[in-house]
Amino acid sequence: MIDVEELRDCYTNTPSKIVLLVADGLGGLAHPDTGKSELETAHTPNLDALAQESACGLTTPVLPGVAPGSGPGHLALFGYDPLVYNIGRGALEATGIDFALEPNDLAARGNFCDLDAEGVIIDRRAGRLPTLVTRQLCEQLQSSIELPGVELFVLPVRDQRFVVVVRGEGLSDRVSDSDPQVEGSPPLITEALDDEAEPTAALIRTFVEQASELLAGRERGNGLILRGWSKRPDLPPFPELWKLRAAAVTVYPMYRGVARLAGMQTIEAGDSLQTQIDAIRQHWDDFDFFFLHDKQIDTAGEDGDFLAKQRAIADFDRALPALLSLRPDVVVVTGDHSTPAVMAAHSWHPVPTLIWGRNVRADHIHDFSEPECVRGELGTFPAKELLPLAFAHAGRLAKYGA
Amino acid sequence: MIDVEELRDCYTNTPSKIVLLVADGLGGLAHPDTGKSELETAHTPNLDALAQESACGLTTPVLPGVAPGSGPGHLALFGYDPLVYNIGRGALEATGIDFALEPNDLAARGNFCDLDAEGVIIDRRAGRLPTLVTRQLCEQLQSSIELPGVELFVLPVRDQRFVVVVRGEGLSDRVSDSDPQVEGSPPLITEALDDEAEPTAALIRTFVEQASELLAGRERGNGLILRGWSKRPDLPPFPELWKLRAAAVTVYPMYRGVARLAGMQTIEAGDSLQTQIDAIRQHWDDFDFFFLHDKQIDTAGEDGDFLAKQRAIADFDRALPALLSLRPDVVVVTGDHSTPAVMAAHSWHPVPTLIWGRNVRADHIHDFSEPECVRGELGTFPAKELLPLAFAHAGRLAKYGA
Repeated sequence: MIDVEELRDCYTNTPSKIVLLVADGLGGLAHPDTGKSELETAHTPNLDALAQESACGLTTPVLPGVAPGSGPGHLALFGYDPLVYNIGRGALEATGIDFALEPNDLAARGNFCDLDAEGVIIDRRAGRLPTLVTRQLCEQLQSSIELPGVELFVLPVRDQRFVVVVRGEGLSDRVSDSDPQVEGSPPLITEALDDEAEPTAALIRTFVEQASELLAGRERGNGLILRGWSKRPDLPPFPELWKLRAAAVTVYPMYRGVARLAGMQTIEAGDSLQTQIDAIRQHWDDFDFFFLHDKQIDTAGEDGDFLAKQRAIADFDRALPALLSLRPDVVVVTGDHSTPAVMAAHSWHPVPTLIWGRNVRADHIHDFSEPECVRGELGTFPAKELLPLAFAHAGRLAKYGA
Repeated sequence: MIDVEELRDCYTNTPSKIVLLVADGLGGLAHPDTGKSELETAHTPNLDALAQESACGLTTPVLPGVAPGSGPGHLALFGYDPLVYNIGRGALEATGIDFALEPNDLAARGNFCDLDAEGVIIDRRAGRLPTLVTRQLCEQLQSSIELPGVELFVLPVRDQRFVVVVRGEGLSDRVSDSDPQVEGSPPLITEALDDEAEPTAALIRTFVEQASELLAGRERGNGLILRGWSKRPDLPPFPELWKLRAAAVTVYPMYRGVARLAGMQTIEAGDSLQTQIDAIRQHWDDFDFFFLHDKQIDTAGEDGDFLAKQRAIADFDRALPALLSLRPDVVVVTGDHSTPAVMAAHSWHPVPTLIWGRNVRADHIHDFSEPECVRGELGTFPAKELLPLAFAHAGRLAKYGA
């Protein structure tokens, strides 16, 4: 909706509390033995009761058939067109370790890898190098390498993964990856993709040369590959767009980071749904909009563990009454994408979604699940169109046109 | 769908009669005592029978969550993207009193208001000045004020409301309102919003100064405020786009005006559904497409009168057989937006919609209502996509592509 400039003036700041509950990877597929999805199988009395008083439907995160990463999945839920606004891999990875990217910073995701005597990649992950070793290597690279005119950050993520951030004036993201994405080939030379990017490409080549020399003698992790050079996306700030005070309440830094890129404030959320809801309670008067992110359902889905995903959904359901006891005006329950356990991956399948609040035209469906949400009035619709509906139910979206 | 240039060549002129029945404000919300909407509660045997032979669904007028004014609501039903084409308040108001706006005319909506000794607005509506007084004031302003190089029209609407139209070359709509929209503040000075609009802004300030002098001595209505300076929208003409002869059959001038802006012809419609249908019968051979507008349902909804809305829907239902006896090829029943009595306002909720005609895939739903239409094949879809469906059933939309 961000692209709809015409509606900008319709948003008004009225006193109301909106909670966006994102159950990451919520949607699923049927278990081959039962014919029922994780959400259909899980015990969810609270979600079912809420759905019976809600308008229901299914959201398409990006486009039919497109399985989104966490970046586009969340941008869509925040009302940004995920095909217009994207977060590059480097920027997302930096954000995901709570690194505060500045507007001119250029970030890439890196892997330490194993090279043979000819410089050919024989293991892209260096046998999943321990995080502790990766941390030491990052410190060594950052302290040893000097790049002219810019500041350098080399930051560990997990296992063999790390982030490189270059801070300086005039850097361009129009540079190619050194990661060939396959083994059996040497790392690629980073090239400028247009003339203006030439100095940046030269700087990156200098970094790679010096880093390669420093790593050369090692048994594991004697090389490095980089990809996804990107800057922080230039997102119109969420609180200004929608005229509200917005807080992100997430356990995992990646999602806190995406929310922060969108201009939301973040509040200390602890490490569970319970502590997240406690945090919302403490800050209830300070914000109009709360984005609560649950990761457990997606993790179980990605692991291909149907039963664990079913249990994570039940946990999510159990947390609901504590949230509802805060008496929000509008509650949205959805996911940023589906993660069917039978696929063990993010998928494109539309995501069960409900909106509860004042003036809702309740669908009277039986329970909150994929097949029941199909019967809801909201139909199957783009995720980016979800938030304005929540704002309408909160009385924050005035009439359009005379 | 007007934005779909690619389909333009698919439209063909075949002999067929299409009737678009717009029950303004048709959609509703449940009465708190019964859990049923106005449409579910009303006695509608004819609509129900028609729905059982129709393809059904719900239309989203603009976007989810967006409650439209009458302008965008109708443009969408006429197949125009309401976010691309909009009708400014001044143009809509002029149109609503049957003033034939010319392409270069610039129109604003005005209120006579009460000012205190310091020029501060103390009543934005001058105690709802009688229409008769407003008419006299308008005549006085129009005959007394001379603006260099342009023609001036000052026209009464109702109560304290009036319309100002300036006719001349090179006028710009990029000028600010003088209406501050609140009391306790003086009227604002009209400013140019870009350089080109400077002469227009100066002209408007001259008008306001002279009008203010003329009104100054009065007890009520000693000031004026203006807003929504706009020109008639540059709509591609409906009959050319769809290759048919189109007639608007409306009781209220506002809707006749919107249809006229879209290039439809208007026919004398009397003051009731009965006289409207009589008018259609008389002109049956002269047109391929008839737009019939019913206002009563919306009026009751805006009044927050559930029972009156229910009765207005039943009246609408009773008129249906006379229309069907004309043997149209395609009938569409929908609304330009919902107006739930419990909200007493236009709302964003999707609007129950049916298409009846040849080659329809009937949904076999039980009755024409919000929850039944949810189960229809058309699903919940943008209102601007409705009319091409009607044309398809009329055999007017040929195959696209080889």
